[in-house]
Amino acid sequence: MQDLTLVMAQFDPLVGDVPGNADRAIETVREARIEHGADIVVLPELFLTGYPPEDLLLRPSMETRLRHARARMAEKMARDVMVIVGYPGRREGQNWNLAGVLYNGEWLGEYAKQALPNYEVFDEQRYFATGSQPLVIEHKGAKFGILICEDIWSETPVRQARDAGAEILVTLNASPFHQDKPAERLALLEARAREVALPIVYVNQIGGQDELVFDGGSACVNADGELMVQAPHWAVGLMPVQFVREQQRWVPRAGETEPEVAPEENLYCALVTGLRDYVNKSGFGGVVLGLSGGIDSALSLAIAVDALGPQRVHAVMMPYHYTADISKQDAAEQAEMLGVDYEVLPIESMVEAFMETLSESFAGTERDTTEENLQSRCRGVLLMALSNKKGLMVLTTGNKSEMAVGYATLYGDMVGGYNAIKDVYKTWVYRLARWRNTESPAIPERVIERPPSAELAPDQKDSDSLPDYDVLDAILVRYIEGDMSAEAIIAAGFDREDVYRVVQLVDRCEYKRRQAPVGVRVTRRGFGRDRRYPIVNGWQPGE
Amino acid sequence: MQDLTLVMAQFDPLVGDVPGNADRAIETVREARIEHGADIVVLPELFLTGYPPEDLLLRPSMETRLRHARARMAEKMARDVMVIVGYPGRREGQNWNLAGVLYNGEWLGEYAKQALPNYEVFDEQRYFATGSQPLVIEHKGAKFGILICEDIWSETPVRQARDAGAEILVTLNASPFHQDKPAERLALLEARAREVALPIVYVNQIGGQDELVFDGGSACVNADGELMVQAPHWAVGLMPVQFVREQQRWVPRAGETEPEVAPEENLYCALVTGLRDYVNKSGFGGVVLGLSGGIDSALSLAIAVDALGPQRVHAVMMPYHYTADISKQDAAEQAEMLGVDYEVLPIESMVEAFMETLSESFAGTERDTTEENLQSRCRGVLLMALSNKKGLMVLTTGNKSEMAVGYATLYGDMVGGYNAIKDVYKTWVYRLARWRNTESPAIPERVIERPPSAELAPDQKDSDSLPDYDVLDAILVRYIEGDMSAEAIIAAGFDREDVYRVVQLVDRCEYKRRQAPVGVRVTRRGFGRDRRYPIVNGWQPGE
Repeated sequence: MQDLTLVMAQFDPLVGDVPGNADRAIETVREARIEHGADIVVLPELFLTGYPPEDLLLRPSMETRLRHARARMAEKMARDVMVIVGYPGRREGQNWNLAGVLYNGEWLGEYAKQALPNYEVFDEQRYFATGSQPLVIEHKGAKFGILICEDIWSETPVRQARDAGAEILVTLNASPFHQDKPAERLALLEARAREVALPIVYVNQIGGQDELVFDGGSACVNADGELMVQAPHWAVGLMPVQFVREQQRWVPRAGETEPEVAPEENLYCALVTGLRDYVNKSGFGGVVLGLSGGIDSALSLAIAVDALGPQRVHAVMMPYHYTADISKQDAAEQAEMLGVDYEVLPIESMVEAFMETLSESFAGTERDTTEENLQSRCRGVLLMALSNKKGLMVLTTGNKSEMAVGYATLYGDMVGGYNAIKDVYKTWVYRLARWRNTESPAIPERVIERPPSAELAPDQKDSDSLPDYDVLDAILVRYIEGDMSAEAIIAAGFDREDVYRVVQLVDRCEYKRRQAPVGVRVTRRGFGRDRRYPIVNGWQPGE
Repeated sequence: MQDLTLVMAQFDPLVGDVPGNADRAIETVREARIEHGADIVVLPELFLTGYPPEDLLLRPSMETRLRHARARMAEKMARDVMVIVGYPGRREGQNWNLAGVLYNGEWLGEYAKQALPNYEVFDEQRYFATGSQPLVIEHKGAKFGILICEDIWSETPVRQARDAGAEILVTLNASPFHQDKPAERLALLEARAREVALPIVYVNQIGGQDELVFDGGSACVNADGELMVQAPHWAVGLMPVQFVREQQRWVPRAGETEPEVAPEENLYCALVTGLRDYVNKSGFGGVVLGLSGGIDSALSLAIAVDALGPQRVHAVMMPYHYTADISKQDAAEQAEMLGVDYEVLPIESMVEAFMETLSESFAGTERDTTEENLQSRCRGVLLMALSNKKGLMVLTTGNKSEMAVGYATLYGDMVGGYNAIKDVYKTWVYRLARWRNTESPAIPERVIERPPSAELAPDQKDSDSLPDYDVLDAILVRYIEGDMSAEAIIAAGFDREDVYRVVQLVDRCEYKRRQAPVGVRVTRRGFGRDRRYPIVNGWQPGE
């Protein structure tokens, strides 16, 4: 009785590129066969379309393309290796989220996903009908029960597979990252394996797609719940594992299980991956960003350089009267430290031209945030002009605390194609900056130490108009991610006035967030597909 | 045996304002009782939260607020009248989309919606569990089978209600408008009534909510499929109908069934309603818009004036070198014609300040769309400054054809809080402008007659870079609303090069649309919640 080698193909498809993803699958399986002698290769959920394909699934020609891709895979796929791969398919007038089994040129069977997530960022019930049958495939004397992602979080499909005779559960996944997700996922796998007393092979997608980022971390868990192998997070690759028949156990074939990493490192990798894939998959030459001397743009610059390399990053300092000298010094210092292109474009002449043009319309009015927004918008226009002329994407640099309370200017500092720190609270911006500097110097220490300011008015500090960030963030986490009411947050020990002010700001700024660029989601609830709030909204803070 | 008076309460709740909507219900029922002697009052689907409440449904305090509201309604509601009203509710750990029956201070029963739409703009399976039981309530000797919206489009709930003894079907709706919807809805009601041989009372919400607009058009259809009464479209109000027991038929109690209106009028009313409710429900004093002398801003101005009155509309002409004299004349003429505030702010000095500042960065490059975008963005910044200073919302004026192919400048002409013509194809912009002028002069004829131009370069015309709008729109309708592939559109008789160019532009501009302001959805597929496309997207035009 022989042992089995299974290869977990932790790969990154391009959403919508059906023929390209089919070629990637063919190439991957060939490599798994040659390099590792794979008997079985498992690819992620919906690999042929990428995840999430969204409304591309509604195009009738999607089915045509998938038919061609599967025919091509049957023809070109390496022989003597069983391939399990995810794709959508049409049957009985409905779409299904499928896992197909291909062996020596024949598609042997298809499993239809049963648990279709339709919460948070997921809309699977918009597209798919619900499967009801298990699929158990025998290969080289072992019986594999196939599952897709959410199925493993649900009891019925798992038990069904076991009752149908599965000896090993294989699950294809496109499980997006958030900060607590890797630990939750592993705990679930361990518990589920013990519960049904079966080993589980879990293969996850990797890479960034719009606001989602997939962390990989594919894993093998034995029937006693022991984690046997874990593929790296944040790295594309093949991870071979061996099933030792006699012991009914998986053992590693190569590599080591990844050591645990600090939460800062994990988060930082998510931001780098999200930005890198957005820029590269969109075909941009690089990014341009405004460097203010503040911590948000400084961290964004470090992420951009780590994602794309210094040659593809262009930084611009756009000073005005209120820009402190140390801001200019620190921006220049960081640009030099990281080796990026850097220029200084003062905004005085534009701001003055606007104020002069508007002087009659504004006659008799007081100075207010209009003038602050004007500075921010002149910077936005400059960045967009550089973007248009040089083919660089503008990187937006506002953090989640700001986006939550609307402490950002529409068409000003909010311009851009992508925001790497969109879902990172300010307190975490500091943590990440400090952690990044422990790897190598990337952010001048003074940027981390000085009190934060938008520098849009004389001697302005963020703390003039907002609670301290540790308080602000604590309130925001409870309101946004915890769905706690204002009164419940107060009861948890926060100042009444702070809470009402913050909650009201969050509610009123939905219109701003709706026009914000996308960015990497890294918390339990990001501002994007994840949080669908009305703009016109009569909800009042309270109980 | 007595006859029955039922009042269809075609009202406009404010999303999220649970206590306010409860008060509106109490007031409405009181009026229906006093004015019309109502035995029964029917209010729309999810009236207490407004539709769609979106993720407000995930807040635990929603349930608290609903409990208070329903207690208050039981206490304060007029007596001797049965009230049927929609609201969400929590039971067995899940949310349900309910219709509750209130009579003399007691909640007599609740029906849970069975058919939960999760397509197009709808996300009901994100929030609600699926009902399975009919509810038939007897009142004054007649048996009412209660249904909610999508239920009536589905066979099972309708048959269930009939089998449970219903003599009359009452359906509570929040059915959003698109151009073909009123006719489709009526045809469905007539067919369904005949099918089960029961009369149907159909009560719809009215008013605008973000991108959705509800047209009302509540109706009574008799068992033979004859439309007996139809409430006006686009008007809030009470519509009493009488059930004549002996004939088992509904007859009108007051008013006339609305005469058929032209498709242009219907669409125009949708745009006016959407804009008016967005501005008023958000508490803006009024709107400011850029008037270019072109047809899009001219139509938008007419809509704004019809929605808000001329006192609440401020128009700005922002000329540059390329602005034709007739553009300036026509803009001034229309502003005077409609009696709105009007000012002229030339953009030369700002454009020059930007070009001067960028001269070194741009050294050695050719003139391209960067310079055109710069003009557009200077206008955007001016409008936003006026908006900030005067508390007016910027009205965006780009049409659907432009938004589809990205013929619009992010942070330029795309700035604004709301776009009344966002979902109106250019060919329809012309139809609406012509129709509007038949009511009263609102748009100078020359604006309608001259060839369209963005006026961002010398002698520029839209037709220089795009197919003629009748061809463009025909391709767009097939691609966006029909989901036809490029090859299928070519096979339908369109030029290959045109089709590929247009389809590619649509695919590539998702990033722009994602940052566009919301606007009224009036077609089968608007750019908003209705069309969820990936930004990073490897899909290529073809089969």
